[in-house]
Order: sequence, then C-alpha cells, then structure tokens
Amino acid sequence: MAVKHIVESQQFTLPRIMELFERTELMKKIVARGGTRDYDNKIMATLFYKPSTRTRFSFESAMYRLGGKVLSTEQATEFSSEIKGESIEDTIQIISNYCDAIVIRHHEEGAAKRAAGVSPVPIINAGDGSGGQHPTQALLDLYTIYNECKTLDGLSVAFIGALDQGRTVRSLAYLLSKFDRIKLYFIAPDEMQIKPDILEHLDEKGVSYQLANSTEGILERVDVCYQTRIDKDRLNNANFDLSPFNIDTNVLKRMKFDSIIMHPLPRSVEISPAVDSDPRAAYFRQAHNGLYVRMALLSMVFDA
Amino acid sequence: MAVKHIVESQQFTLPRIMELFERTELMKKIVARGGTRDYDNKIMATLFYKPSTRTRFSFESAMYRLGGKVLSTEQATEFSSEIKGESIEDTIQIISNYCDAIVIRHHEEGAAKRAAGVSPVPIINAGDGSGGQHPTQALLDLYTIYNECKTLDGLSVAFIGALDQGRTVRSLAYLLSKFDRIKLYFIAPDEMQIKPDILEHLDEKGVSYQLANSTEGILERVDVCYQTRIDKDRLNNANFDLSPFNIDTNVLKRMKFDSIIMHPLPRSVEISPAVDSDPRAAYFRQAHNGLYVRMALLSMVFDA
Amino acid sequence: MAVKHIVESQQFTLPRIMELFERTELMKKIVARGGTRDYDNKIMATLFYKPSTRTRFSFESAMYRLGGKVLSTEQATEFSSEIKGESIEDTIQIISNYCDAIVIRHHEEGAAKRAAGVSPVPIINAGDGSGGQHPTQALLDLYTIYNECKTLDGLSVAFIGALDQGRTVRSLAYLLSKFDRIKLYFIAPDEMQIKPDILEHLDEKGVSYQLANSTEGILERVDVCYQTRIDKDRLNNANFDLSPFNIDTNVLKRMKFDSIIMHPLPRSVEISPAVDSDPRAAYFRQAHNGLYVRMALLSMVFDA
Repeated sequence: MAVKHIVESQQFTLPRIMELFERTELMKKIVARGGTRDYDNKIMATLFYKPSTRTRFSFESAMYRLGGKVLSTEQATEFSSEIKGESIEDTIQIISNYCDAIVIRHHEEGAAKRAAGVSPVPIINAGDGSGGQHPTQALLDLYTIYNECKTLDGLSVAFIGALDQGRTVRSLAYLLSKFDRIKLYFIAPDEMQIKPDILEHLDEKGVSYQLANSTEGILERVDVCYQTRIDKDRLNNANFDLSPFNIDTNVLKRMKFDSIIMHPLPRSVEISPAVDSDPRAAYFRQAHNGLYVRMALLSMVFDA
Repeated sequence: MAVKHIVESQQFTLPRIMELFERTELMKKIVARGGTRDYDNKIMATLFYKPSTRTRFSFESAMYRLGGKVLSTEQATEFSSEIKGESIEDTIQIISNYCDAIVIRHHEEGAAKRAAGVSPVPIINAGDGSGGQHPTQALLDLYTIYNECKTLDGLSVAFIGALDQGRTVRSLAYLLSKFDRIKLYFIAPDEMQIKPDILEHLDEKGVSYQLANSTEGILERVDVCYQTRIDKDRLNNANFDLSPFNIDTNVLKRMKFDSIIMHPLPRSVEISPAVDSDPRAAYFRQAHNGLYVRMALLSMVFDA
Repeated sequence: MAVKHIVESQQFTLPRIMELFERTELMKKIVARGGTRDYDNKIMATLFYKPSTRTRFSFESAMYRLGGKVLSTEQATEFSSEIKGESIEDTIQIISNYCDAIVIRHHEEGAAKRAAGVSPVPIINAGDGSGGQHPTQALLDLYTIYNECKTLDGLSVAFIGALDQGRTVRSLAYLLSKFDRIKLYFIAPDEMQIKPDILEHLDEKGVSYQLANSTEGILERVDVCYQTRIDKDRLNNANFDLSPFNIDTNVLKRMKFDSIIMHPLPRSVEISPAVDSDPRAAYFRQAHNGLYVRMALLSMVFDA
C-alpha cells in the first residue's frame, strides 16, 4: 500500500490523492513556521538529463524545507567524460548508493519506470519524454484546481494547445476522470488534437468531453482554462493563425468571474502578461503549489 | 530604511556602508568560531546566466557559514529545455516561490533591477552586463581598502585597465566619492578611458582626479593601486604595447611601502605572479573579504 | 604524520592504509545509524574540470553523511565568463577562502599536486589526467578486495583492459605491491599493455607478475578479476577482436567460486549485464564502498 516509487499518474488512486492533499496542507503549515528537520538525515539526488531549473529548484527547495540534503545535476547528459550512453540501469544502481531518493528527468519515455525497476531507493519521475509522464506536475495541477475551486466534482475544464504532445494535459485529464460530473474541452489545431487513447479512457469512465479548434463558446462556460504552449515550428502551415488560441484581456472578459487560468510554465505568447494581475490568473499560485505538493510526495516516499 | 534588494552601489549611503562594515567584522568572528545556525531556515538561490564559479562559491559559502541552504545554477542560460528566452520577470516570479533570496548574474544591464521590480524575496545583483553594476564587488573592494588602510578619507587611488568597461571600477569610484579628500587616478589607453558620466559625478562631489595613460609618476604616490585586465582583442592596434600598464617586481619598487595592490580577479598577465609574495599584494585578501562582506549583506537583507 | 592533502597513492603507507580501513568500518556504522553531525561546520568544494557525476556524487554524499556542506561544480571549465585559462594556482588560492577542503578533478596530470602546493586547505585528488593519479579510487578498490576476500596477502589479481592508460590499475597495482605473496596478471592487447615503470616497481618489491593477451588459463586461477574498458577507437586495427577480453556468463563458469569481479565503472560491453546477478559480481558493492572510503578520507583530512 505504501508508495515506493512515483513513476506515473495512474498509480494515484482516489484515497492516495486525498492523502496527498492532506499532506500538502500540512506542508503549507510547516513552511509557514520555517520548515522541519524531520528528514535531516535524508539525501535526495536530482538527475536531470534535460535541464529544467524551475522543476529542479522546486524539488530541491521541497527537500530543504523538509530538512534534507541535495545532490544536484544541472545537465546529467555530460554525466561522465569517459563514456557516452551508459545504461540508465547502471547509473541508477550506482547513484542509489549515494542517496535516499532519486528525482529523474529524462528525454526517453519510460526511463523512470526502467530506473524504478532496479533502484533500491525511491525513484520520482520529473518528466520522461515529451509523450511520457510527469506525474508530480499533474498532481500539483490537480491540487491547484482543488485548492482554487474547493472541489473537483462537477467542474468544466478546457485544455488549450499542442495537446498531442502535452504530457501534463494527458496526465491531468486522466486524473480528472476519477471525479464526478467532469466535463472536458480539448481546444487545439486539428493536427495537434489530443490522442485517441485518452478519449477512449474518458469514454470508458463515462466522462463527457468535446473537441474544438477555437475557444469561442467554450471559455465562457468553463471553471478552469488550462493553457499550454504551441510550438509554431510544428505547424505545417507557417501562416497558421495561432491568435485564437491565445489569452489576453479581451478573452479574459468572456470568462466566468470565478474561473481560473492555469499554465505549466514557461509561457511564450499564449498568455499576455496583462492577464497576470487578474485574480483569475492562477499560474504563479500553481507554481507555488509545486513546492508543497513535492514536499508532500517526498514525505510519502520517505515515510513508506 | 531596511535593505530589501541589493541592486546598485548607489543605494549605499554612508551610514549603511558603516553598518555593513560593522556586520562584516562580526562575520569574521562568526566564521572564526565555526559559523552560525541563525539562518538555518533560509534558502538562497544563485541564478547565474553567466558562469562565475568564484563569485557563486563566494555567495554560497557565505550562505553556508550563516547556516542556510543553497539552490544553485552553474549556467542558467540552459534554464529550460522547452523554451528559450523566458522573460526574467516570469523566471523570478517562479523561482521566488522556492527560496528566501535570489543572487542573480545576468548578461543584460538592468536585469537585476527588473528582477527586483517583481520579486517578493530580496534580489542581490551579482553583476549585470559589462557596463552594468556589481555592487557586492564594489562593497568588498571598499571594505578591503578600509581594512588595509584603516581609513577611507584622504586616500589616493589609481585605477588601471580597460576602464570604459570596468563595472567594478565605476562602482568603486562612485562609492569612494562619498569620502573626504579622495584623489583618483584613471590610467588607461586613451580608447579605454573611464566614461564622462563618472567624471561628471566626481566634479559634482568636488573629488580631485587625473587621467593618464602611463603609471609613471603616479604609482609612486598612491595608497591603492586597483589593477584590472585589458582585453588585447579590444585594441584597434594589435601592436599596442600594454606592458606599461602591467605590474611586476620592478613597478613594485616604485610604490610606497604601505600601499596596496588590488585586483577583482581573475588576472591574466597584468600582475606578475612574482608580486604575490609581497605584503602589498592585497588581491587574495580582497577575495577572502568577499566571504565576510557577502555574509554581512545576506544578513542585512534577511534581517530587514 | 597527519594527512594534509590526498594527492597520490604513494602517500599511503601500510599503517595509514590500515587506519583508513578502520575508519571505513566506522563510517559504515555511522551511515547505518543515519549519519553524523560531527563535521557540520565544514564546507567541501568539488572542483570538477571534467564532469563525472558518479565520483562527484560519491564525495558529496560522503560529505553530507558527515554532516557537512557542499559547494559544487558540474563543469568547472566554464569557470568564468571573463577569462579562459586562469592558472590552477590562482583558482585554488581563491576557492580555498570559501571552503575547508577542495576535491579536484582535472584533465592535466599533476594538477592536484600543483593545487596542493599553494592551498591552505586540504586538496583531494579525484583524478588528474588519464595517465595521472586517482588515489581515492585505488583506495576504495583496495578496500573492496580486503572486504570481499578478508585479506590482502597471498592474492592473485588479474587486470584486464587498456592498461597503458588505466590510472586506477596503475595505482592499485602499486598499492597491492605492499602486501605479501601477491601475484599480478596484466591482460591486454599488446599495444595497450601496462607501462614498464610499474613492472620495474614490482620487480623492486619482488612481486610476481605475468603479461598476457588472453584471459585463457588465467581467470581460472585468480581471486580478483579487475576489468576495465577498452576504447575501440584506440586500436590500430579496427577489426581487432576484443571479445576475448570481455566477461560473460561463459567466462564466469571458468572462474573460481570464491573469486570476485571488479570494475571502476562506467562499463561498456566488457562485462555482460547477465553477470550482474552472480554473487561474484562485486562492482556495484565496489561503488558503494566509495561512499564509506571517501567519508573515511574526508574525516582523516579534517581531523589532521
């Protein structure tokens, strides 16, 4: 029943999600009173094969607030000057001697699962492959919705962007399907729509959804708008107009007064900085929640 | 009155400089007895867009001696694998969730000020742009002069090198102008002389100064010789003779017995290693002072 | 008598090796009970001019388990954006202000010795140059043999690989020559055989040895098989068959039931992953010992 590794969103049952949220609330209190030393004999290693300072800092800060210590790689691809391409299994079997948990970000889908297969210490997946998993992001997204909307039942959520490659969107859609009376909207250029496997899962679970290629008529009614970035280079037509997918103060006017806008960040042009000061802009609060949710997840694997 | 951010030398009034020097003396005592744990619930992040191991280690060591924790980037340009060129404002709004102070080094002039404009936690400028500010270097330089010469009034100080681009020279000249009966010498190839804005400031403050393109007749009389590096590639004439600007044991003979030689380091050929063993060579002591001054500055922003 | 710097294997006399092994046993107990805080006012800097995450993490974890703090470089070649090629002496004289010990890995043979020549704090050589020294690796290798075989006297040890460039092999052969009735085998393609200086040393010490270019008839009788990697690009003949130097389950069948296989890692094809599950595969235990031996070495320089 204990959580050994955190590899994919599918591990998280409803009771475990509720346990996570309770721990997250506790972590807020712990940080407010200056952190804890409860885990001061624990060492966490961040093994990042793709640099991501924000995600790395989020985990490392979480570990520090828990009282622990951090072994850090900014760019593990330059892992060794002697050999290129050591197997992830060998690397993990060595690094696990030096720490009590490994947070791994890797360019290959499934890398975290392979790592977990050989590791005597907990593996936490901080993103593997563009089509892979990023469960801690999905969980902090879910917590943010819960914290902002005070419920997860009965919500309407719109996802916007390059949904075919969006691992956070895929994972979050999966997690949301566990809740009652959810309605999902997937808004993307046709060539970047969400893949059928997710839709099949939603059909199985009886979750209502709609595909669209414009925000018109949808953003007016949703509780949550989850915006992501579209890489213009991926579009077949360089003149494709992306502006209907962007959020600016005009789009904001069409949204409900108690809705929220989320984004996994970093953003490019898809949310105007003018939106930041609106109380519905939840993306910086979302990033802040990353600290508490990751503290909660670390405490779960250490306490397991 | 409290110091929130440390962005530019101009923030430091005479009383604040004196407070800093008192705190610096205290920090020497604290280090001598093995450091303190007073700030053990604080996290400092070093966000270095240009690598500088010496400056980064200086800050990180200061934080450790204060009992605190460190989030570190060696090369933040590779900030994210997903997007190039996120705005400094967005980056700071996220990173500030994970720490209690951010030390930033950036290639763009004014980056630290922009960061301070949006940051809920203190920003400390560790150098922004070649023509920008590097206030902690200027303050440790000023402290070194004070500590070596036991006064800051009535001193003669010569600056040597590519003074048009020397942000440490500019900031230090500015700070020295606050003291009485200062005499400054700016020794550089004509095309690299100090820029008029600094001279205008000195005129306003009634500080006496002289421009020169040779050390002859000047180094014989100064209390402080502040040497910097000249990048030979910048000279229009590749055959330009830089040797009159260098310091070796012969030049040393011309200097006063109680004068000092400073350098922000790293050095190239402009100070001969044979000078190192002379008691007037103060540059390694200057680097050491960086630890204490940065501890003092960190304590000032945390106590504010 | 105290150990100030750890620069080369030759420093380690038999009594000192025994002291190291006793401290190593103690460190195992300390880690088992969650580490110590005895060195919590100490800062160790890792100055790695060549990246090696495994060696760096091994030292940093050792320092954390001792209660200390860590200043870290992943790739110190990008030491400064301002100047390329500052002398190692200048760098050390500055960095030593910020820490209590410096662990250095450098591409130039002799770099650690030069660093030790100017450093007021202990220097620990984590590998300098491909033909240079890597004393902490040699010591953990020696400890592993001692720990696995319960003695260092009377052992037969085979070294396999590109022995001309193998600094760990050279250092370990040197250390083994201190013990009684040692028999060494050097198995390599002729063009990569061990260099004469080591053989001369063995002759002087009266150590028995044999050169070979096949494992046939040798692996059957050794207590320790120390495998290393052969870089195929270095062979004059691209069609040279390296398979006789590799270890797979068939080779394993020829080895004694109580022998061990070691490797400094990372490995390429020279040991088949199928060998890993055999109890004689000692290379992951060897990596684990790196933690305890490095803790012991750090405690020796801090206690000196």
